Amino acid sequence: MKALVYHGPGKKSLDERPMPQLASATDAIVKVTRTTICGTDLHILKGDVPTCEPSRILGHEGVGIVHQVGTAVSSLKEGDHVLISCISSCGKCEYCRRGMYSHCTTGGWILGNRIDGTQAEYVRIPHAETSLYPIPAGADEEALVMLSDILPTGFECGVLNGKVQPGSTVAIVGAGPIGLASLLTAQFYSPAQIIMIDRDAHRLEAASRFGATACIDSRMSEPVAALMKLTGGVGVDCAIEAVGVPETFELCEALIAPGGVIANVGVHGVKADLHLESLWDRNISITTRLVDTVSTPMLLKTVRSGRLDPASLITHRFQFEDVLNAYETFGRAADSHALKVIIEMP
Amino acid sequence: MKALVYHGPGKKSLDERPMPQLASATDAIVKVTRTTICGTDLHILKGDVPTCEPSRILGHEGVGIVHQVGTAVSSLKEGDHVLISCISSCGKCEYCRRGMYSHCTTGGWILGNRIDGTQAEYVRIPHAETSLYPIPAGADEEALVMLSDILPTGFECGVLNGKVQPGSTVAIVGAGPIGLASLLTAQFYSPAQIIMIDRDAHRLEAASRFGATACIDSRMSEPVAALMKLTGGVGVDCAIEAVGVPETFELCEALIAPGGVIANVGVHGVKADLHLESLWDRNISITTRLVDTVSTPMLLKTVRSGRLDPASLITHRFQFEDVLNAYETFGRAADSHALKVIIEMP
Repeated sequence: MKALVYHGPGKKSLDERPMPQLASATDAIVKVTRTTICGTDLHILKGDVPTCEPSRILGHEGVGIVHQVGTAVSSLKEGDHVLISCISSCGKCEYCRRGMYSHCTTGGWILGNRIDGTQAEYVRIPHAETSLYPIPAGADEEALVMLSDILPTGFECGVLNGKVQPGSTVAIVGAGPIGLASLLTAQFYSPAQIIMIDRDAHRLEAASRFGATACIDSRMSEPVAALMKLTGGVGVDCAIEAVGVPETFELCEALIAPGGVIANVGVHGVKADLHLESLWDRNISITTRLVDTVSTPMLLKTVRSGRLDPASLITHRFQFEDVLNAYETFGRAADSHALKVIIEMP
Repeated sequence: MKALVYHGPGKKSLDERPMPQLASATDAIVKVTRTTICGTDLHILKGDVPTCEPSRILGHEGVGIVHQVGTAVSSLKEGDHVLISCISSCGKCEYCRRGMYSHCTTGGWILGNRIDGTQAEYVRIPHAETSLYPIPAGADEEALVMLSDILPTGFECGVLNGKVQPGSTVAIVGAGPIGLASLLTAQFYSPAQIIMIDRDAHRLEAASRFGATACIDSRMSEPVAALMKLTGGVGVDCAIEAVGVPETFELCEALIAPGGVIANVGVHGVKADLHLESLWDRNISITTRLVDTVSTPMLLKTVRSGRLDPASLITHRFQFEDVLNAYETFGRAADSHALKVIIEMP
């Protein structure tokens, strides 16, 4: 089969690879029908993710058709249409019992990281019954690719951790795909204000279309002053960090109101300054989270009911034979205006 | 009347001052019967608290007898025995309605800071009905002085924010009075382990007596390795920072288990390093809080029922005429082995 393979920092190619085989009775082999590229795949290609070793097939998002199941799999069968979660979870360890699937002792984020991933014609999914979700008949397959990672990440790490409430004020720092996923799902809870902060006018324009009540272009105006003006000098109840660099995290520290929550979503490579000298008495919380995908069933329902339209995040489509082109387009998002790209398998 | 007055960094004296007067219809004047000294008073004397200006009477803890009430005060009367909260709260502003009394727009921590405090024969208490608590007949007055600040601080900022649960593992970094207050109140919730970390053998000995399941002397052994050994390599569900310097906060970052909470209690003067490069995917929370004293009624009940013995924190007693001696003893706690000192008014 064809697969997009990582060959060490800066190196990838579309290679011929053997079909994956069942390795455990709880595995399934899924024929991938659509996948996508995540910002995390670009991090891997920069060499930032040491757990991902050369010759790994990349990708942790996708939908497909069950091709084969292990002998212990009873709730899935060949031919089932399934959504692949970016998080594999056994459902049995202490962390899984607590709903912290991201820290499953034999799973977590392993797809396209510690084991071969979804940017291939077939993929082996461990713990299949608790890592795949049946797709309802008639669902838009493209839209559901957004539910493998990006929407549960924006929702769980940003909106749920950030305790977005009716009437609350929210700032989202970073209007990339993850920030926009937080923006879309924050609206479930009817906040009073959602203020998007970015330095890309095109992404802020998308944020306006997707329901932001205000946008701050941090190249054009000083974001703290601009936000304080919008919130009566108080700051926001919830600041969602959706970039992953010290500057944007520290910006959230400056934006947060007493009693507020800074919900970190970004993947960070270095430490940030925590200004405890001004925050120790502010009654704030800071949260971090690797998505657990506990909300995937809930998000599937919001898509079915029409409340959430994940397809709005899709800007480009490619055939799998053009996957290198898809990476190139996704990688220069500032020029290409790419949000999420869909890759159709043969 | 006699009062302990701050005269700028490093300077204080026992002075003659005029009696406080009612300034608002919601005020009360309280004749102080017992007060104490807080670590925060020492911070003020170092010049670390710019809101506290020279000629301020210090002190934000104490019990006393209502001497006089404003015309709008109906639930308190002359002669009532009352506990003074370190937090004054109007009960009416948005923050008070949310139970965030510490951020009351016309109160908060103002006693012995922005207005004259309790280390005096008499003190004016603003918002008297929502800042004083009636003391039940027969209660131990000394013990209740611990409920003005230290016990609600250790409980709310440490134990409640830290989400201590039955069976959970807790580390408390700092075995001073606040850390010990967290230790005493954490036991309400039956955690499996409470590991105290300090570099003062005498304080750790007190922690053992007060219910710590293990103590780590950070001068004798590397605290991260020692704690990991005690927790099967996992870290703790709750790390309570009760010192207020970067080193101890960063130690909490190294001790916390996936899904855990770092509850900051310490008063910090400088920033700390937040190691987001290792914490971004650990599903942790960090909380900060200036005590709200929302738990004071609850703590009063635990004292009455015998579940909590705050008097165990008292090591020294002084008459008010010896208050300078009391400061000296409290200030060299490593030598004097002082935890909390009680000051009896004439």
